Amino acid sequence: HGTGCSFSAAITANLAKGYELKEAVKISKKFITTAIQYGVKIGHGHCPVNPNAWLAIAAEKWRVYEELKDAVDLLINMDIVDFIPEVGMNFAYALPYPYARSTEDVAAIEGRIVKAGKKARAGEITFGASRHLAKAVLKAMEYDNAIRAVMNIRFDRKLVNKAKRKFIVSFYNRQEEPPEIKAKEGATVPWGIETAIKRIGKVPDIIYHEGDVGKEPMILIFGRNPREVLKKFEMLR
Amino acid sequence: HGTGCSFSAAITANLAKGYELKEAVKISKKFITTAIQYGVKIGHGHCPVNPNAWLAIAAEKWRVYEELKDAVDLLINMDIVDFIPEVGMNFAYALPYPYARSTEDVAAIEGRIVKAGKKARAGEITFGASRHLAKAVLKAMEYDNAIRAVMNIRFDRKLVNKAKRKFIVSFYNRQEEPPEIKAKEGATVPWGIETAIKRIGKVPDIIYHEGDVGKEPMILIFGRNPREVLKKFEMLR
Amino acid sequence: HGTGCSFSAAITANLAKGYELKEAVKISKKFITTAIQYGVKIGHGHCPVNPNAWLAIAAEKWRVYEELKDAVDLLINMDIVDFIPEVGMNFAYALPYPYARSTEDVAAIEGRIVKAGKKARAGEITFGASRHLAKAVLKAMEYDNAIRAVMNIRFDRKLVNKAKRKFIVSFYNRQEEPPEIKAKEGATVPWGIETAIKRIGKVPDIIYHEGDVGKEPMILIFGRNPREVLKKFEMLR
Amino acid sequence: HGTGCSFSAAITANLAKGYELKEAVKISKKFITTAIQYGVKIGHGHCPVNPNAWLAIAAEKWRVYEELKDAVDLLINMDIVDFIPEVGMNFAYALPYPYARSTEDVAAIEGRIVKAGKKARAGEITFGASRHLAKAVLKAMEYDNAIRAVMNIRFDRKLVNKAKRKFIVSFYNRQEEPPEIKAKEGATVPWGIETAIKRIGKVPDIIYHEGDVGKEPMILIFGRNPREVLKKFEMLR
Repeated sequence: HGTGCSFSAAITANLAKGYELKEAVKISKKFITTAIQYGVKIGHGHCPVNPNAWLAIAAEKWRVYEELKDAVDLLINMDIVDFIPEVGMNFAYALPYPYARSTEDVAAIEGRIVKAGKKARAGEITFGASRHLAKAVLKAMEYDNAIRAVMNIRFDRKLVNKAKRKFIVSFYNRQEEPPEIKAKEGATVPWGIETAIKRIGKVPDIIYHEGDVGKEPMILIFGRNPREVLKKFEMLR
Repeated sequence: HGTGCSFSAAITANLAKGYELKEAVKISKKFITTAIQYGVKIGHGHCPVNPNAWLAIAAEKWRVYEELKDAVDLLINMDIVDFIPEVGMNFAYALPYPYARSTEDVAAIEGRIVKAGKKARAGEITFGASRHLAKAVLKAMEYDNAIRAVMNIRFDRKLVNKAKRKFIVSFYNRQEEPPEIKAKEGATVPWGIETAIKRIGKVPDIIYHEGDVGKEPMILIFGRNPREVLKKFEMLR
Repeated sequence: HGTGCSFSAAITANLAKGYELKEAVKISKKFITTAIQYGVKIGHGHCPVNPNAWLAIAAEKWRVYEELKDAVDLLINMDIVDFIPEVGMNFAYALPYPYARSTEDVAAIEGRIVKAGKKARAGEITFGASRHLAKAVLKAMEYDNAIRAVMNIRFDRKLVNKAKRKFIVSFYNRQEEPPEIKAKEGATVPWGIETAIKRIGKVPDIIYHEGDVGKEPMILIFGRNPREVLKKFEMLR
Repeated sequence: HGTGCSFSAAITANLAKGYELKEAVKISKKFITTAIQYGVKIGHGHCPVNPNAWLAIAAEKWRVYEELKDAVDLLINMDIVDFIPEVGMNFAYALPYPYARSTEDVAAIEGRIVKAGKKARAGEITFGASRHLAKAVLKAMEYDNAIRAVMNIRFDRKLVNKAKRKFIVSFYNRQEEPPEIKAKEGATVPWGIETAIKRIGKVPDIIYHEGDVGKEPMILIFGRNPREVLKKFEMLR
């Protein structure tokens, strides 16, 4: 479809739903903007839009939210305080391809998971709540778009060795980061993940790095969804 | 479509998405169950299903969650402690027709909004978190399915009088509840809301009741969405 | 001691502790005010103060806070959602005699204990967080100053009957409340507790009332400290 | 007094307070243990105890709790997210000399202060909730026992330069840490604080370090109480 017919169809549909005209136009505009964003240029003179995008994105957001929330509820009731890094633990889950475009399209835990005495305490699940893990999973999706979930745990050489016997493991070395990457705000994690993926030619289950001046070393566990990541974590601990 | 073709189509689609067969079958089964639930019996020998239901419900859940969360965030930063009833304040928002079938299809605040010193504190938004308000809004939807949101505030005769000058107001009297309703667990609220709606022949903006032995009197504000309910609340205070 | 010598002694002591003069005077003034409040008039021309009051009150506040917090931590990990009234559950613990003078001298749970799904959620422990329970326990202390703790649970006739076999139980009837009490803001609970105590000539373990128009019926469990109240609750459920 | 007379005096006093014998003995035993811990050896054949210690410690715990809670409430309502380090912000306040003996005698924030979206979120105040900051302030107290409070903020060279114009500033370099210290679990912070204090011959307002492999650089603000630390922080931002 072209944008014109989609737009008018959307307005009609929203009027039929009982919205007043002003409201119907407003919603339809938002809808058509989303559709255009995910449309594909085909032919000439036409800009076919994707009228399903709006519905699909909202649906996927709910699924991502619900699956991640379930996994985090399970996680914080496990005995995990010893696995929480100094900087806290997080768990990120991206919208599926092609909707995962920026860190705003990745759900994670606001305020991370932190130690509170002998318990773990988690904040709310929201989209855009993570920078590091969100960037890590978005980079992994560039190589394998089925890999949409990741969590981080405290670095521990014993865990890395155990992981090597059970999983595909790769790593990156922050000290080898090229100066032009280091100079760019927020470029380290994508560079590191890419380096680790290219090292073995695929997205591994585990990527770790051993830290740098001012940076805590870390282990990242990747998977297709939060449940799979959780299963890997349970095999590791 | 019949269920057979939908089922196989769903499996194919999920395989194409990269799920393994077992997982694809499992997801497709859940999907087809949802579709059948909302299907419409037409003709003979066929049970046409609604293949959009699964996607639509997930999408609507996200919208309901997001709109309600935004409204509650605004609400608890307003000066509302004097409007919180002894039993706490809640805010409920139902999935649209025809998906709002039970209290599990209505989102509300887990643990309600309570006074904590001079501030208001709210729990998380989840589906199924309310019984009273969920039943109230489900009953209202039977009469006008555009009315999907409701909040409750502390009863105050001055507020009721103010409401009468600005809004359509109705009420019910718990002391007039028929004994056969009273005997039925959870039947009071639907009976009361229906009584109040029938009294004026439409779903009003405000329904109140003046309490009964053991029951706090209450004011309920209805609207099409949380934002509209919030606007009415602001006009009232 | 008279106030003069106590005041100067306090300043000297605070200077010795390393406070600057201005700060030492400020602290000493607060200290002496507390001491005078709890002083006893003896002889003529002198107003002996209680120089221990300030220290004692702070110490008792800590003990009350700590004991109540421990009890509430135990309580919310028990299976209690069915015992939470519509208005929420609270747990109050007063400073010992003679320091318990107003609701500000009684610690309780800010925002009470509420149902959040299948779990119970409690706010922070603070002094002044309760009105109803605080007034109830202050009234009980007038008759027996060892009784400093109280919690409320949902009214249930079966629980009342069970209580009668294990504990000393009394009650009051809100419908018998004299009109001059009813007219006075906040006078109902003290009147009710006094009525229940006088009925049996002592402070009972349990006081209940069966509600009134707009008021939920309730069961109150009294004891000397939170641990004792908790023990009674466990015998009752 | 010797322990015998103190013990019997304590039991008598607790019986007088209305405790039953068993309870009175139990409380008195706890009391006398505390008193002995803080007693001072004088003369021969006698071990004079400090009968005030128990009362004094409880009183000081309450004051520390209350002052720290007030400061943290102010802090999280300030615009501080840009000052929160990756590892979170904490605020520690020690019992006064001679009661501050271990990290259990230092109150801090359980789960620290973390970024949650655009807001800061703090856990509860408890004794023993911090290791790093608690050790830092305990070491500072060895040099100046009036300095009982400390908070940490994100390292930023501009802040350090600003601090140098307003405050007494010192630092330590984790790369200069002797290997025998590095080998000892938990010895780095005390070594660092001591190094920074000795460098300038007194406890400074600010101590910073620039990080190490795996360790985030950090700025610590010291003061006599939480209010003073907060005032310094406000002058710095």
